[in-house]
Amino acid sequence: MAAIAPTDPLVETRIQRSFAKQGLMRTLGANIVRISPGAVEIALPASASISQQHGFIHAGAIAAIADAAAGYAALSLMPARMGVLTTEFKINLLSPANGERILARGRVVRAGRTLTVAQTEVVALAAEEEKLVALLTATLMAIEDREGISD
Amino acid sequence: MAAIAPTDPLVETRIQRSFAKQGLMRTLGANIVRISPGAVEIALPASASISQQHGFIHAGAIAAIADAAAGYAALSLMPARMGVLTTEFKINLLSPANGERILARGRVVRAGRTLTVAQTEVVALAAEEEKLVALLTATLMAIEDREGISD
Amino acid sequence: MAAIAPTDPLVETRIQRSFAKQGLMRTLGANIVRISPGAVEIALPASASISQQHGFIHAGAIAAIADAAAGYAALSLMPARMGVLTTEFKINLLSPANGERILARGRVVRAGRTLTVAQTEVVALAAEEEKLVALLTATLMAIEDREGISD
Amino acid sequence: MAAIAPTDPLVETRIQRSFAKQGLMRTLGANIVRISPGAVEIALPASASISQQHGFIHAGAIAAIADAAAGYAALSLMPARMGVLTTEFKINLLSPANGERILARGRVVRAGRTLTVAQTEVVALAAEEEKLVALLTATLMAIEDREGISD
Repeated sequence: MAAIAPTDPLVETRIQRSFAKQGLMRTLGANIVRISPGAVEIALPASASISQQHGFIHAGAIAAIADAAAGYAALSLMPARMGVLTTEFKINLLSPANGERILARGRVVRAGRTLTVAQTEVVALAAEEEKLVALLTATLMAIEDREGISD
Repeated sequence: MAAIAPTDPLVETRIQRSFAKQGLMRTLGANIVRISPGAVEIALPASASISQQHGFIHAGAIAAIADAAAGYAALSLMPARMGVLTTEFKINLLSPANGERILARGRVVRAGRTLTVAQTEVVALAAEEEKLVALLTATLMAIEDREGISD
Repeated sequence: MAAIAPTDPLVETRIQRSFAKQGLMRTLGANIVRISPGAVEIALPASASISQQHGFIHAGAIAAIADAAAGYAALSLMPARMGVLTTEFKINLLSPANGERILARGRVVRAGRTLTVAQTEVVALAAEEEKLVALLTATLMAIEDREGISD
Repeated sequence: MAAIAPTDPLVETRIQRSFAKQGLMRTLGANIVRISPGAVEIALPASASISQQHGFIHAGAIAAIADAAAGYAALSLMPARMGVLTTEFKINLLSPANGERILARGRVVRAGRTLTVAQTEVVALAAEEEKLVALLTATLMAIEDREGISD
């Protein structure tokens, strides 16, 4: 498992704390493996608990970590009082995902005051090789001064 | 929990058997609650294990059951020797999802020989009320004669 | 050509004036044929000037009127000081579009303070029959107090 | 206007002939400015004839050339007997498009036997500067042995 890359310690702490509150990520077994300004990577080990009917990793699990990587990439560029919500995403599934684990690499394409657009590449890793399995594009909305939303 | 609507018993059995192999659906706690030709509904009870950081149901969990409902709606119209794979989907998240459970209602919009387009509405249910929380549109590909893929 | 349905005359005038400023709609030969609160229809006659390489109507022309129908459906529910911009859309092309003309039926699915989600069905019309050729889902952003944008 | 980059002359001729049959591209004023294996660029000069209501280039015109660039990028990798149809695309509009012209840079992300996924970046050019205005992801379908479709 890759170590987390160094960045602003406050941003990193904020994202790790927020990620730890995402029950779904814990349920799936996902971890953040890299945080830098405008880019976040999330890894998910393959297992029967996240499969679809043919034994591949379920598109829903791929989409979940790809969305989370996009969302935290967006949050990494927002002021501390703001929260982030996904308003829409689109994912193209390029190959069935198998292997040892998948890795979602999210990065911000354009950061606006209200809306941020981010893209995530998802690769499947087996032995030394990686294979591109999905591409996601998401719109994230910055939420300010709404009760219960600050991350 | 709604009873499963009657349809061709073979189609229903085929879809239920396939669904039972989706480790992710079991991990999330999702169930099929209705199968009819070209339409499938999947329910998911709200819980901390599928949350995002603000306590709402995670977009990834919403997308997972919406994709599965679209995929099984497509499979319900395919011959028994064929399997189905999602090639892409897009989801708009209209409101934060909370309440007791969410329900994904998938239906086929156009069934082609190779590609099927299906749409899923996701509603959140609390007490007697339902609220529209997401809309998904997916492209599903029919797979024939590929080893390991027949559902 | 269908008559324009009656609605708030001010809304109708506002949308017709705005539409008349869209050089692209004039270039394509498109017309608004119906305006009601939250729903707008745009028609486009088939011709060689909007074709793709096989003689069908180009996906870009279909997308253009589908986007415009979604945008004006959204604008029909906004206060007079606001303008509208498309932030994203997704279109599924279900059948090659031919016939005498195509008709894009846009309607608002959810109107929020900042973001509105609208969907458009596009049908191709020939003789008495209509065929569904495309489905679009768009996010529209309300723009307030920005110079040059009030429609 | 950039010169067309050299590539397989047969591929280039095939794409230029196909593009010349797209009535919509001529109507909009678009030109292919670069063809290489798996990548095609299309330019569109700004003018009042392709505007939306605020004077920017219409999202429909942006989408049209972005779709065409993705489609021809896909076709550039297909055998000569095959044609290409767009089955779906999604576009995020990142900034209002103005300037002297826009340029759509399409490239294949994954070429499959039946489906190809391509992405297009659209930039607006003014003076020496370019600004990213849109990102499109499309699925293209290879069509074989269907009458009237060989490009």
